[in-house]
Amino acid sequence: MKRIGLLTSGGDCQALNATMRGVVKGLSHNLTELEVYGFMDGYKGLIYGDYRMLTSRDFSGILTKGGTILGTSRQPFKMMRVPDEKGLDKVEAMKQNYYKLRLDCLVILGGNGTQKTANLLREEGLNIIHLPKTIDNDIYGTDMTFGFQSAVDIATEAIDCIHTTAASHNRVFLVEIMGHKVGWLTLHAGIAGGADIILIPEIPYDINKVIDAINRRTAEGKGFTILAVAEGAISKEDAALSKKDFKEKMRDYKYPSVSYELAEQIEKKTGIEIRITVPGHMQRGGSPCPYDRVLSTRLGAEAANLILKEQYGYMVGIINGKVKKVPLGEVAGKLKVVSPDDQLVQHAKLIGISFGD
Amino acid sequence: MKRIGLLTSGGDCQALNATMRGVVKGLSHNLTELEVYGFMDGYKGLIYGDYRMLTSRDFSGILTKGGTILGTSRQPFKMMRVPDEKGLDKVEAMKQNYYKLRLDCLVILGGNGTQKTANLLREEGLNIIHLPKTIDNDIYGTDMTFGFQSAVDIATEAIDCIHTTAASHNRVFLVEIMGHKVGWLTLHAGIAGGADIILIPEIPYDINKVIDAINRRTAEGKGFTILAVAEGAISKEDAALSKKDFKEKMRDYKYPSVSYELAEQIEKKTGIEIRITVPGHMQRGGSPCPYDRVLSTRLGAEAANLILKEQYGYMVGIINGKVKKVPLGEVAGKLKVVSPDDQLVQHAKLIGISFGD
Amino acid sequence: MKRIGLLTSGGDCQALNATMRGVVKGLSHNLTELEVYGFMDGYKGLIYGDYRMLTSRDFSGILTKGGTILGTSRQPFKMMRVPDEKGLDKVEAMKQNYYKLRLDCLVILGGNGTQKTANLLREEGLNIIHLPKTIDNDIYGTDMTFGFQSAVDIATEAIDCIHTTAASHNRVFLVEIMGHKVGWLTLHAGIAGGADIILIPEIPYDINKVIDAINRRTAEGKGFTILAVAEGAISKEDAALSKKDFKEKMRDYKYPSVSYELAEQIEKKTGIEIRITVPGHMQRGGSPCPYDRVLSTRLGAEAANLILKEQYGYMVGIINGKVKKVPLGEVAGKLKVVSPDDQLVQHAKLIGISFGD
Amino acid sequence: MKRIGLLTSGGDCQALNATMRGVVKGLSHNLTELEVYGFMDGYKGLIYGDYRMLTSRDFSGILTKGGTILGTSRQPFKMMRVPDEKGLDKVEAMKQNYYKLRLDCLVILGGNGTQKTANLLREEGLNIIHLPKTIDNDIYGTDMTFGFQSAVDIATEAIDCIHTTAASHNRVFLVEIMGHKVGWLTLHAGIAGGADIILIPEIPYDINKVIDAINRRTAEGKGFTILAVAEGAISKEDAALSKKDFKEKMRDYKYPSVSYELAEQIEKKTGIEIRITVPGHMQRGGSPCPYDRVLSTRLGAEAANLILKEQYGYMVGIINGKVKKVPLGEVAGKLKVVSPDDQLVQHAKLIGISFGD
Repeated sequence: MKRIGLLTSGGDCQALNATMRGVVKGLSHNLTELEVYGFMDGYKGLIYGDYRMLTSRDFSGILTKGGTILGTSRQPFKMMRVPDEKGLDKVEAMKQNYYKLRLDCLVILGGNGTQKTANLLREEGLNIIHLPKTIDNDIYGTDMTFGFQSAVDIATEAIDCIHTTAASHNRVFLVEIMGHKVGWLTLHAGIAGGADIILIPEIPYDINKVIDAINRRTAEGKGFTILAVAEGAISKEDAALSKKDFKEKMRDYKYPSVSYELAEQIEKKTGIEIRITVPGHMQRGGSPCPYDRVLSTRLGAEAANLILKEQYGYMVGIINGKVKKVPLGEVAGKLKVVSPDDQLVQHAKLIGISFGD
Repeated sequence: MKRIGLLTSGGDCQALNATMRGVVKGLSHNLTELEVYGFMDGYKGLIYGDYRMLTSRDFSGILTKGGTILGTSRQPFKMMRVPDEKGLDKVEAMKQNYYKLRLDCLVILGGNGTQKTANLLREEGLNIIHLPKTIDNDIYGTDMTFGFQSAVDIATEAIDCIHTTAASHNRVFLVEIMGHKVGWLTLHAGIAGGADIILIPEIPYDINKVIDAINRRTAEGKGFTILAVAEGAISKEDAALSKKDFKEKMRDYKYPSVSYELAEQIEKKTGIEIRITVPGHMQRGGSPCPYDRVLSTRLGAEAANLILKEQYGYMVGIINGKVKKVPLGEVAGKLKVVSPDDQLVQHAKLIGISFGD
Repeated sequence: MKRIGLLTSGGDCQALNATMRGVVKGLSHNLTELEVYGFMDGYKGLIYGDYRMLTSRDFSGILTKGGTILGTSRQPFKMMRVPDEKGLDKVEAMKQNYYKLRLDCLVILGGNGTQKTANLLREEGLNIIHLPKTIDNDIYGTDMTFGFQSAVDIATEAIDCIHTTAASHNRVFLVEIMGHKVGWLTLHAGIAGGADIILIPEIPYDINKVIDAINRRTAEGKGFTILAVAEGAISKEDAALSKKDFKEKMRDYKYPSVSYELAEQIEKKTGIEIRITVPGHMQRGGSPCPYDRVLSTRLGAEAANLILKEQYGYMVGIINGKVKKVPLGEVAGKLKVVSPDDQLVQHAKLIGISFGD
Repeated sequence: MKRIGLLTSGGDCQALNATMRGVVKGLSHNLTELEVYGFMDGYKGLIYGDYRMLTSRDFSGILTKGGTILGTSRQPFKMMRVPDEKGLDKVEAMKQNYYKLRLDCLVILGGNGTQKTANLLREEGLNIIHLPKTIDNDIYGTDMTFGFQSAVDIATEAIDCIHTTAASHNRVFLVEIMGHKVGWLTLHAGIAGGADIILIPEIPYDINKVIDAINRRTAEGKGFTILAVAEGAISKEDAALSKKDFKEKMRDYKYPSVSYELAEQIEKKTGIEIRITVPGHMQRGGSPCPYDRVLSTRLGAEAANLILKEQYGYMVGIINGKVKKVPLGEVAGKLKVVSPDDQLVQHAKLIGISFGD
């Protein structure tokens, strides 16, 4: 007999349901008694005791379903220690709800911020297992997060569609891809979509080099250029600003995102018409791709395995093709970014993709 | 023996290649001798004599290929009568190239603007067949244009992706769909994607009614609302402005499109976070959907049929399920817009979709 | 206040849920009181009183979901008048359950067989509305059935996949497409997929002409040939057999389907390797395509409209682009088959597709 | 200046073109002079000197294109040493063509059989680089082959479609998935598609255990069961036969494949109707998935890298996320099969999937 809690926190992504299904199938197949409590809308549900009891039936047919049956919300880590407007101590509230339900383990699905809170709860003495969810693939301690490949698929499809139309016109096309701090998604989708220029936060760009790359294509008789640009792409000038100065610049920023500013610059400097595509939240939605479903099922099954063996305090990750437990305390709060020396970046450059650097 | 010219003009879309394949397969299967001249980049190729001789092989394997193997460009109709910068009379130039190649017929694929020029060339004595291409489905004289259903598929997929992520958060999501003057695409994709609110150019919206519709959903416990908004959606206030006043307003418009202004208003008035998705040119790209491939093949085959019978001066359209020739002079320059009384609008309202009117 | 029953019968297909959602949204948006009874597994649920009361919530989020939330089963029309093994008169049982629940109307989604039973119930005095569901598009009185376009999309995708692999090898590929009695699905998917040969039940084939068409392609240097073959494709010889003789032939038939026999003949006569693909029930599954979702929503909304106006005894169909009510008595039992003179067949032949006739 | 040859051999798959594009882009971006010779239809082109000179333009736009622009054919390794019908020594012929064109390196894309011949040519003194292509992922020395994930996607989609239709009926559905000797594809697609039973060549099944698994689902009130069955799935009885006895059994085998025999047994023993789906060559076709495009581009780029450094005699593989060169002599002829102890199999069993063992 086990009592487990489940919650999904942070921006949603594909395969959250598939992962929870893996956990619950893994447990229910190996236990005669199991109680599953699903907390609603992320940590909020745990704080305010908003939960539903779930049965195997709730996890049937959700392998392919995007989103999360539990709902989710963003709860910034730094706010966790701050009492809510009614003076409630959130951390204490979470602990009380955990103990009131006599949970054996709380399984938490989320990204970096979520992971920090998960680790906090672990330090407070709760049995925690964390499952690494994010379309950004920026979680330290695992080679891959679920949601990432599905987002790559959608972002690539966006570039694919642009590609066929681009090839009929003489224009520059810019596809803005999710990722404020890390560029894995843009990097993979950019390569998969055959983008000519890829701009990511980790490699600040020089606008003149971007223009050069476009002009070079024009000179070679290639009628169009496609840019895959991360939301968090940054120019060398902006990257050189102090945090304070950059914030100031952004305060009165007239563009919805850096893509629009960049597009204006390119249009001005090359005279070529430019079109912007912003797939936005599409990248978080839809059915998880088969790759993610297998990964999610494995991570979920391994979480079940750990619960059966009563091993807590871990993130379940995949390292060199093997699913493994990783001590939560060792990885929480660390970010996995793209190194400019990464072999993938080097391969991209080798085949002529410009990073504007 | 026939000599035919082909050109694709205006914004590109899916199934241009499929349609040309239909024409050429239809002819080459029924003629022992055939010469096909493909003019490059729309009317530009015809004006400046930029063409390629094409063989059956060029049309093999392009049924599923997006874009156009001939390239395309926009040549505004009102500029056709204006000599180019070197003083060249464009209409005369087109006629000369037509006669120099001793064409039996020029097959022109394009939308409304293209059609007007096609009709002009017909009036000038050329043998013309026009094939109705556009993702907007706004061509008078045919129930359906090729490209439309493929664009519906992509715009719907965008809403689908948003739907799964929306259902996990409490937010308003706005998907901006192509269509500056007509709302067919937004209407179909909005219904197919299960949008709650659909805003199209033909039905100006009252911002308060849009807000009401959002609040009603919140009151019913539905955590999210999805808006499908045409690029050309317009508020009742703006619709009431004179053309001049509206132009003035737009001159210093600080938003990339009306969606961003609308989003700002909604966020301010409801306090709910809003997210914008702009699939943009994705809607013109990718492989044509099977529906469009069948339609295109039929329209192309019928064009071949007319050429074999030496019947010129027509658009080939589909009316009540039958492919038919329509005199070009009768339809050129007319627009097919969404009537607020259209049965499809009525059905959408019947199931509770708000048009903000 | 209305009380309505819903049931889905026959082989399942896409957009059953979307259609029911249209009906219920249309009613609940316009009535303050509504009771919906869903009968399980087709007529079986109506016969044996197996039903669930449904609320709006049950119809939320099912627009994109394949299958049917009510389940379905096949109940041959000719068995309806035969008492069941316990002596129960099925027709009487259905009527009693209808009256016991004091239904205002029973909405029945299904194909030809289902329609016949629906008409029988109408003749017995029940208020019936029938909605035309089938991937075969063989229902008389409507230009289009829901499910058809979605099935076309899947069958076409199958041919598309085969196409890319076929083009790399020198082989013949046969794709077996659903349709025992009618060839609409094979015809549309065959054209959309660029098949070279299309064999359908309505146009019996001559094996020698099929071989000729393959050899012609080989002679033209085209390395591969793709056949789209309906399950019910039939040779001229078999078509000439009496019903009794044909049945006898089939009794000891050693092939899983005619495709395998045909493939064996082709391999023997041409010496070219042949590969068979059988997408089978895939064609009934998956999410409905946007076209079907719009069609389904409209048919469902119009059914709601009729119920609100208390007009019963109709099928809701689409004719020349308008959704209309069609007296059930006028259409029940009639089949809509492909005429060899159909314009679509003529267009296919015009571009060189062989029907083996 | 480099002169390289390219050939694709064996059954085709997705991403062959993407991989060749990676090689050529990697070289042309880093060399001022490059000559590329594409041998047609696999080793056949090398043997008989059938080649085309290719330019960068030939590799433009093929990233997303399935199949291979060079064509392919199967040339059994054991036949390579046997002279052809005209007495030509094939190995000598290949060497002569290699030397005649003064190639610096021959890049060979293919699976296990292809690899053996590639190694033979290396032993004969040619400069060879092998790139691991196969939907089976059974090549020793690399964690992943290109083509595999794309095939997983298609096979999973097949199961997905079946899933929605299965859930509406009470039936058993069997999806036959490619893989005569190894089960990776069936294993991944089976898990990703939510199959209940997975049968693969490496884990012979006991028909009674398969029946038990089906009956257990029926007993639990789950109306349907889905089996993912590899082409090479084998019963414990058949696995116990001597090679000779098995061959004899197969000689008069009346079923198109083992799936049909298995289906007959299940239907007989459970009384439940069963439906078979055979996606077949669909699994080799279509556009490569984004995962494969990134992998292919990297493998191709690394091949270019090796050529630039004049390092020959390697397969380029991916091991623990890094692209690496692997000595061809160390891996040629070895097969990578699914171990029953593989962590993925264990995870599948943990969540209740039956392997019939």
